[in-house]
Amino acid sequence: MSPPFETPQAAEDAFYDALEARNVNLMSQVWDDSPDVACMLPMQPIVHGVEVRSMMRELLRSNVPLDLRVTHIRWVELDDIAIHYVEEHNNAAGIPKGAPGIYATNIYRRRGEAGWTLILHQNSPPPPDGPPPRP
Amino acid sequence: MSPPFETPQAAEDAFYDALEARNVNLMSQVWDDSPDVACMLPMQPIVHGVEVRSMMRELLRSNVPLDLRVTHIRWVELDDIAIHYVEEHNNAAGIPKGAPGIYATNIYRRRGEAGWTLILHQNSPPPPDGPPPRP
Repeated sequence: MSPPFETPQAAEDAFYDALEARNVNLMSQVWDDSPDVACMLPMQPIVHGVEVRSMMRELLRSNVPLDLRVTHIRWVELDDIAIHYVEEHNNAAGIPKGAPGIYATNIYRRRGEAGWTLILHQNSPPPPDGPPPRP
Repeated sequence: MSPPFETPQAAEDAFYDALEARNVNLMSQVWDDSPDVACMLPMQPIVHGVEVRSMMRELLRSNVPLDLRVTHIRWVELDDIAIHYVEEHNNAAGIPKGAPGIYATNIYRRRGEAGWTLILHQNSPPPPDGPPPRP
């Protein structure tokens, strides 16, 4: 799997493949080459631009367990922008079974022949004990 | 302040004004009229489409304290899509002073004369004790 990614789904597959395979080169190719990109991992500071690649490189080279199962929630397609809502479950050893998933929003941008690249990855923890009564 | 909102910033101002004034009608006008819209409040289930308006109405009519100060992080402008990263601090009585802010990503879409409307509001809690060492 290599760029240019011809669909947002191809870019998304490459993103999660790069996480699972701890493939720094592929991960770097998934991200748009722009100061606008942003990444918000769970309970982590927001990271922008070139720092996203650095942070991803550190994550992939760390011993943080990463064995994600990704559940599709919804695609939103808007011309040259695609927004994907998913839920990520970490199946890695050491992560409690039945731990709640983490919401993720991935936004992809198309730039002509450069294809689709990732411009935002944002996680939000859902309620730990399932859906609570709404406020 | 009323629609159509001629800029993403006008839509954003209306969103936070509606929260502060608990103005259900204005809040309803801020959101795009589409099944694609989504809202992820902190530690809450993801909500889509017409349910977003219902959930917002319940929130505004609840006794959840809402006195938000919003700090700008970054704007991303992409033709008919605008992405805004902000940090929200809740200054309401009962919220501990110095509590960490909450990241929010707001995505706006332009639809011709209908102007700019909100299609995504997503919160992510940042680390409670400030930036930790990265993984």
